[in-house]
Amino acid sequence: MSLGPNDSMELQRDFGEQLITRDVGEAIFALAARIFPICRSITGNGVRQTLREIRSQLALEVHEVPTGTEVFDWTIPREWNIRDAYIKDSAGNKVVDFAQSNLHVMSYSVPVGTRISLAELKKHVHTLPEQPDLIPYRTSYYAEDWAFCMAHRQLEDLREETYEVVIDSSLEDGYLTYGEYLHKGQTDEEFLISAHVCHPSLANDNCSGVALLTHLARRMVGLPTRYSYRFLFVPGTIGAIAWLAHNEENSRRIKHGLVVSMVGDGGGPTYKKSRRGEAPIDRAMSHILRHSRLRSVIEEFSPYGYDERQYCSPGFNLPVGLFQRSKYGTISQYHTSADDLSFITPEHLLESYNLIVKTIDVIESDAAYCNTIPKCEPQLGKRGLYRRIGGKRDIATENMAMLWVLNLSDGTQSLLDIADRSDLPFEVIRRAAQLLQTHGLLTSSPLAPGGAREPRAVP
Amino acid sequence: MSLGPNDSMELQRDFGEQLITRDVGEAIFALAARIFPICRSITGNGVRQTLREIRSQLALEVHEVPTGTEVFDWTIPREWNIRDAYIKDSAGNKVVDFAQSNLHVMSYSVPVGTRISLAELKKHVHTLPEQPDLIPYRTSYYAEDWAFCMAHRQLEDLREETYEVVIDSSLEDGYLTYGEYLHKGQTDEEFLISAHVCHPSLANDNCSGVALLTHLARRMVGLPTRYSYRFLFVPGTIGAIAWLAHNEENSRRIKHGLVVSMVGDGGGPTYKKSRRGEAPIDRAMSHILRHSRLRSVIEEFSPYGYDERQYCSPGFNLPVGLFQRSKYGTISQYHTSADDLSFITPEHLLESYNLIVKTIDVIESDAAYCNTIPKCEPQLGKRGLYRRIGGKRDIATENMAMLWVLNLSDGTQSLLDIADRSDLPFEVIRRAAQLLQTHGLLTSSPLAPGGAREPRAVP
Amino acid sequence: MSLGPNDSMELQRDFGEQLITRDVGEAIFALAARIFPICRSITGNGVRQTLREIRSQLALEVHEVPTGTEVFDWTIPREWNIRDAYIKDSAGNKVVDFAQSNLHVMSYSVPVGTRISLAELKKHVHTLPEQPDLIPYRTSYYAEDWAFCMAHRQLEDLREETYEVVIDSSLEDGYLTYGEYLHKGQTDEEFLISAHVCHPSLANDNCSGVALLTHLARRMVGLPTRYSYRFLFVPGTIGAIAWLAHNEENSRRIKHGLVVSMVGDGGGPTYKKSRRGEAPIDRAMSHILRHSRLRSVIEEFSPYGYDERQYCSPGFNLPVGLFQRSKYGTISQYHTSADDLSFITPEHLLESYNLIVKTIDVIESDAAYCNTIPKCEPQLGKRGLYRRIGGKRDIATENMAMLWVLNLSDGTQSLLDIADRSDLPFEVIRRAAQLLQTHGLLTSSPLAPGGAREPRAVP
Repeated sequence: MSLGPNDSMELQRDFGEQLITRDVGEAIFALAARIFPICRSITGNGVRQTLREIRSQLALEVHEVPTGTEVFDWTIPREWNIRDAYIKDSAGNKVVDFAQSNLHVMSYSVPVGTRISLAELKKHVHTLPEQPDLIPYRTSYYAEDWAFCMAHRQLEDLREETYEVVIDSSLEDGYLTYGEYLHKGQTDEEFLISAHVCHPSLANDNCSGVALLTHLARRMVGLPTRYSYRFLFVPGTIGAIAWLAHNEENSRRIKHGLVVSMVGDGGGPTYKKSRRGEAPIDRAMSHILRHSRLRSVIEEFSPYGYDERQYCSPGFNLPVGLFQRSKYGTISQYHTSADDLSFITPEHLLESYNLIVKTIDVIESDAAYCNTIPKCEPQLGKRGLYRRIGGKRDIATENMAMLWVLNLSDGTQSLLDIADRSDLPFEVIRRAAQLLQTHGLLTSSPLAPGGAREPRAVP
Repeated sequence: MSLGPNDSMELQRDFGEQLITRDVGEAIFALAARIFPICRSITGNGVRQTLREIRSQLALEVHEVPTGTEVFDWTIPREWNIRDAYIKDSAGNKVVDFAQSNLHVMSYSVPVGTRISLAELKKHVHTLPEQPDLIPYRTSYYAEDWAFCMAHRQLEDLREETYEVVIDSSLEDGYLTYGEYLHKGQTDEEFLISAHVCHPSLANDNCSGVALLTHLARRMVGLPTRYSYRFLFVPGTIGAIAWLAHNEENSRRIKHGLVVSMVGDGGGPTYKKSRRGEAPIDRAMSHILRHSRLRSVIEEFSPYGYDERQYCSPGFNLPVGLFQRSKYGTISQYHTSADDLSFITPEHLLESYNLIVKTIDVIESDAAYCNTIPKCEPQLGKRGLYRRIGGKRDIATENMAMLWVLNLSDGTQSLLDIADRSDLPFEVIRRAAQLLQTHGLLTSSPLAPGGAREPRAVP
Repeated sequence: MSLGPNDSMELQRDFGEQLITRDVGEAIFALAARIFPICRSITGNGVRQTLREIRSQLALEVHEVPTGTEVFDWTIPREWNIRDAYIKDSAGNKVVDFAQSNLHVMSYSVPVGTRISLAELKKHVHTLPEQPDLIPYRTSYYAEDWAFCMAHRQLEDLREETYEVVIDSSLEDGYLTYGEYLHKGQTDEEFLISAHVCHPSLANDNCSGVALLTHLARRMVGLPTRYSYRFLFVPGTIGAIAWLAHNEENSRRIKHGLVVSMVGDGGGPTYKKSRRGEAPIDRAMSHILRHSRLRSVIEEFSPYGYDERQYCSPGFNLPVGLFQRSKYGTISQYHTSADDLSFITPEHLLESYNLIVKTIDVIESDAAYCNTIPKCEPQLGKRGLYRRIGGKRDIATENMAMLWVLNLSDGTQSLLDIADRSDLPFEVIRRAAQLLQTHGLLTSSPLAPGGAREPRAVP
């Protein structure tokens, strides 16, 4: 099935209208709140339960990769599960209780059940002395160990005595679990959207991203798109590596991609470019953020962060960037118990959702066109396209957008190129292009003016 | 006839000397003052009368294009002429009189002769409420209408009564008129200089440009130049389009070009680059402005402005920039009765003239040369070219210019390249090149050192 | 003998360790102090004596080029020597005495022995009225003349009387003398390091450079290097020209080069790029200076300065930059008697030495490598390469360096490229690369992983 320029234009106009609705922010927040209490790690029942919640909204495909499977340089670890954990003082009071916060146990802690002195206990406790009221989030996936995490004040209150320490966890052969959802578009070329699903009760990092992706995918159901959209809900690092290992051939279809995390707070937005630096996704998202009126930050690629580390490894070098609000590691709530549901809001989730949808919208509809009357300006007035300007000091942005599209549409410059050069929003440029196309002033191909079937995709 | 490098150099030295004289500013001002009172529009006798004034100084060729002629997407409109217009109150007093200012009538107003209420009249009146003492300039070329323009205070003083409204104009088949002057140079390659000639009594916009071009062309008579210079005095938009439509083939000869308007005020100077952005004209004028000590502004191309819109349409994409003092639309006098002869001065006209001449000078003489002693520095001292520097802390600019020319003249870098890289004025670099050439240290071609005929033009 | 990547790495690690020692600054200062009193010029016994001092530390090859030899556009001048010079007042007191400072006589002054009035004398006196206590340094190599240089106060104290003026100099056929030392590396490709040796008692300009090069060459003896290092001790301009004229063919081997002068003061450091602008030496030295914590200044090439003028003349266009502390001509001591031994310090000489050694180190060891596990990240943890980061907010620079090297090592980007893109010091990047190579994660060639013989040199 071919996709003509008019279709494409119509399609896109519908795209934003169908996807962007006021209530999306509330819906994302509600799902984030549902999955917040679950104790997730890189393997185990927490991930399964989370994927079940997503599945209640979206026809998610769930994959399980057995312990011991080799995925490039890595091996799927044993599966970790935890039922309970606590520290009791000599009076039998639980001074630390996993039931109150799953951050209290370092992820992948081996089982333990013993009585030890405070001094001994302290060797297995993580706190944040500079943020004495917060519980830190800690992991030890590949070094066998156990530890409790607690507020520093809590630790300081502990007296010299013998404590009963119990972690009722298991570390056994099992599976790594991840979820995948494919929205089929008109081509096999893919847009990858990936969120890590391995952190426990941290609302922003990454209940927010998981919930946003779920609702984005859910709303795309039935929507015709140029690209196919692959949504991944994977445990960080090992999950992305497992997916790439099992989809090496298919990964070549990925033309654009985003890793999405921490999208519910009011910071940023922050976009870290892909390793390529000037990929269409980099240009599209930079454009949308620049015109967003928010205090956006565009960063160059660096090899530290989330799963873009794997997607952008030199053997794949996929055009995948990272979208966040506040950048990881730059805010006091990061990886602490302060990253709870009060830290994210429906409004910020909606904002983040809209920025992602607008970026997808650019990627979907960017193409180069040709002015059908390239010699001198077409007379816009006689077509009713030009507001009379004799008496106006300010030429309307719409008029300028038409002039820009006409002037630069020589088949080599795409709408995004034109939007960037004119410093006008993509949607204004596209609207002008649509109007001009309706009036026969713009065609998708210099070879078949007026009757072309395929917009010239910009690589 | 071939143009050797020495000739070329001599030529250029004479160029500036012959063209730049103190009294040019006064002469330009005098012509601007002569044509200021004429009521011009895009067609009609006002343009003819203006061209006659120019013709009294320059052997201008005048062209007339009949109404109805198709020029690309446009059609030459009916010819508009006006004899008189006024608004009389019930006492018979002319409260608005075309004879006092031709701005009082919206250009291309259809004839009218009627008695109407104030309320009815107001529908046909343009004012500037924020500049209540000024008459605005308004047009309605392609939508049949009529209107008066007046000072807002004037409008506020009108009482509720019946007014007699007369516009004694005609809108009939006729011609579009434009003027053209070609200064023949040693090659057929052309430098286009274009001014719009369609505005009524607006001194800066564009009596100034029309008068400047006339005197520039007049002073070039008999002067040998590398390029041919084509001066166009055309009604804005439709005039430029008509010229391009009738000269499509010839337009390929245009290697450089300038649209000139609003050159008599003390603002800027402002240069808007051609669509190409890095054409020789863009680099030359930017260089001259950067070294001018004025508060010059260099702007990137945009598709709104004067006739560069047509010359830079994608089907032509000619290397034509826009030279102005204050940028259109940025000053309070723009398109109002305050743009009168008191707004322009001989001094500023002279300054503008000189900047254009210097830019032409760069275009005329820029070329790449070869150092004839490229291995190590030539010994300048034994040729008397180097001032003794043993005791001087500051090396004279002249010495530096010679060193720069010698160091970079490997046949790939032109004098303008060298001027830009060294951040020295082009004229200093050229003078150094002339001196070095005189001493046999610089040649125009690596193939025929010392005996070359053609300077290597820089594209 | 081939140079494998491991060898290369080892080599470089040793390089810095062997060359950089605390006492180098003192040693350089001591040699500068020994040669400071000698009256040097572009020819004559002063140069010979200076080269003898160097020879006492280094197996220098000394060349003599006869007067009258043509070297490109220049001719070797007559040899100048001076034994004594003074001005005596009528009472027989020496009011100016060459024995007190060899700056008192303009270099290349012809012999004179006469009695003249103060007015007559003044025509042959150079002073610095704005620095009245300092003696200026002056030369007149190619115009026969004589002059005294003195403090302005000294001149003002002279009374109107007759003075006996004696310059016991000679200007006769002889030789231009220069020194050359070649450190042979594993290839014939050369790194040129050049210092001018023609200035009299000016400590910074250039006893400092001459002494630094001597000790650098001395410490490289026996050290295996990739490049061969050619040290030149040449009279300014004419010496460099003579060397180039006699080594035109060999000069093609020069892949990198530095002119070194004024390296003992506390200013800068200043690096002026080669004419090429982006040669490896330009990038390497810019990198080292940027990471030096000193107030370094990187300047674009200009054709005025020291012997880089000759090396970078268009017929050679060698990749040779200029390294200094304070830039010539920018400090009050420049070319005056204030440029004495108190103006330079062992600390600054050591600093300069270290910067040059580190730059050489970059040039020696820069190469592009390949990540042997390019698909997804290698699991650094299981190799003990990754510090546990679960609980650390700041990822150690070392970890980041490993990630950068792994991510960018696709065979196209060298360690210096990676250092610049990551904004990490080259030595940190190289250390990470060494560590990764030791663990088999990095190889020098994609064609022969793990077993390659030749690092891919970056051009």
